[in-house]
Amino acid sequence: MAATRYNRFVAALAKARLAGVALMPDANLAYLSGLHFHHGKRLTLAIIPADGSTPCMVIPALEHTQAAATSTLAMRYFPWADATGPAEALAAAVAAAFGPELRDLPLAVEHTSMRVMELRAMEAAWPGIRTTNADPLIAELRMVKDEAELARIEAAVRIVETALERTIAQIQVGMSERQLSKILSEEIMAAGAEAESFDNLIGSGPNGANPHHNNGDRTFRPGDLIVIDCGARYQGYISDITRTVALGEPVPEARRVYDLVLAANEAGKGVCRPEITGAEVDAAARGVIEASGYGEYFIHRTGHGFGMETHELPNMMAGSDEPLAPGTTFTVEPGIYLPGKFGVRIEDDIVITADGARSLTTFRRDLIVIPA
Amino acid sequence: MAATRYNRFVAALAKARLAGVALMPDANLAYLSGLHFHHGKRLTLAIIPADGSTPCMVIPALEHTQAAATSTLAMRYFPWADATGPAEALAAAVAAAFGPELRDLPLAVEHTSMRVMELRAMEAAWPGIRTTNADPLIAELRMVKDEAELARIEAAVRIVETALERTIAQIQVGMSERQLSKILSEEIMAAGAEAESFDNLIGSGPNGANPHHNNGDRTFRPGDLIVIDCGARYQGYISDITRTVALGEPVPEARRVYDLVLAANEAGKGVCRPEITGAEVDAAARGVIEASGYGEYFIHRTGHGFGMETHELPNMMAGSDEPLAPGTTFTVEPGIYLPGKFGVRIEDDIVITADGARSLTTFRRDLIVIPA
Repeated sequence: MAATRYNRFVAALAKARLAGVALMPDANLAYLSGLHFHHGKRLTLAIIPADGSTPCMVIPALEHTQAAATSTLAMRYFPWADATGPAEALAAAVAAAFGPELRDLPLAVEHTSMRVMELRAMEAAWPGIRTTNADPLIAELRMVKDEAELARIEAAVRIVETALERTIAQIQVGMSERQLSKILSEEIMAAGAEAESFDNLIGSGPNGANPHHNNGDRTFRPGDLIVIDCGARYQGYISDITRTVALGEPVPEARRVYDLVLAANEAGKGVCRPEITGAEVDAAARGVIEASGYGEYFIHRTGHGFGMETHELPNMMAGSDEPLAPGTTFTVEPGIYLPGKFGVRIEDDIVITADGARSLTTFRRDLIVIPA
Repeated sequence: MAATRYNRFVAALAKARLAGVALMPDANLAYLSGLHFHHGKRLTLAIIPADGSTPCMVIPALEHTQAAATSTLAMRYFPWADATGPAEALAAAVAAAFGPELRDLPLAVEHTSMRVMELRAMEAAWPGIRTTNADPLIAELRMVKDEAELARIEAAVRIVETALERTIAQIQVGMSERQLSKILSEEIMAAGAEAESFDNLIGSGPNGANPHHNNGDRTFRPGDLIVIDCGARYQGYISDITRTVALGEPVPEARRVYDLVLAANEAGKGVCRPEITGAEVDAAARGVIEASGYGEYFIHRTGHGFGMETHELPNMMAGSDEPLAPGTTFTVEPGIYLPGKFGVRIEDDIVITADGARSLTTFRRDLIVIPA
């Protein structure tokens, strides 16, 4: 598997007329080599030349043994010790990786992972270096999931749905967002997750109107809507689901908005099929909300790709005009946020199939009203 | 508190002849403003001009309300929406922050936090920009902890020590590293942590010889040494402790190495006082190990600063020649790693005091031998 991915990747580098790519110890490197690291402050960097020669890895000496034993890709290792620093090892790796015929081409670097620290180190090791953004290139390769990846995502979905059901059953008046968050975290782990995909979000009452609310000490009251956004990581792949529940009967506007968001969710999912674009999925969901006059309260994109990371390509938003292939996984998560009042978001995980699309999340979508 | 820190910080920027600093949504910004973010892929950046004018914050629209309500620093906000992207907001923020008299000076950026994504965006918003590394400047300000910070660190130490004691009591033959890791995680949370400081490390038997071993499925056997490295986060501050325990009586060499590492730990702590340097602390601990002939098996620095992050300045290593002031917190954690056999590390959390130093960690340091 890793070898196939690597070959596709090197072919894409050569086709793009790049010298190669420098990869941080993050998801892309894990995708290609199976290597997982603590991404700390010690310079750790894999260099993959576009001519297919063996990748070079600059690595802290104390990580060397484990990496060499774990990597599914052959690597030339350039370890460095704290006492000397990484500059010499990096210069040696650059010299080994890039012959004269590659030296004039740009190097792709991960704009959302590489830090200025590594960029400046590369500039010192390779005077005159030109860089381009590796993210779109790799993101496109990673966008389409194979069967093994989909199986892990489906397992991550089962885990979070089990945890979500158990968590909702424990909601009661007087409980705080933080308390529910802790219960949810524990249920996600208890259901078999390696970790949460991200810090879960609990937005209750007016806090639900902030889609990125930090869980706080507000306690639940009768009539609250509670937005619950969470995910589970399983064997390196994640799930991401949002449901909005009511604690006691909510005000009529809340029910109206809930039904509208659900209709938008269904509309967005409904258009999904091979060759659809992210822009079209967004337009389908957004159209429902705009037609109802709530357009200005749907303040984020309709969804995002996911897999090894919670946010991957494709984006479900205007301008996302690339046709999606079978195996592409992404969320559909319209929302309406009424400042000072409440918020509603309903998020599902979708995969494009050979002849349509399928929601991997199957958790009930009718408004759950918990007795208050 | 935040205002004092901010004033000290702006004074340091002006003294260093900088235009100002750009801060990522990470620990430094939290230190100065109390703002905590999910550091995602949407450009989020605070610009602090060196002339003391109000900082400018480029922020995703959906984070704006919460940030404005939370920040303890006055800010001018430049929100941006997914549909338009951040370029215009960033250009406006740069124009607002830097008048002509600052435009010719370099901008400090966090080399270990800022990504190439933000750097390239800054280069587009400010043609001709020169940057320097903000990390040492801010790290020095953060190195010395005030009373409120020390109180949080001490609470984080109590939490992890409670959890460590309960965890060690559950170790038994046949348990795997992963199983013990899960128990430890749960005990740390149960003892009152907000989170673990980092993914805890359990290195058993020969795995202990890799200081960055990833917890695996190896099960504990009689005679194993088990290295346990863990920490707790409490109110934004962390603790970091390592103890090495034996499951059943270990081989004589293991006892000998344990005593040596303990002597090195005591030697490193023993020299700590105001005006000591990180290099001197390292030399004191390392000298004990080198004198015994195990020098080549002590393959990392003796320790590192900590506080809001697990790794801060100062480093306890050769070249760290700045005298340490009272309030500075750091680890002393010598180790000996014998490939294929076992590893030993004993790590304490130290604070420099007015007239000496104090170990915040007090967990017993004699070799615990768990009945096998």
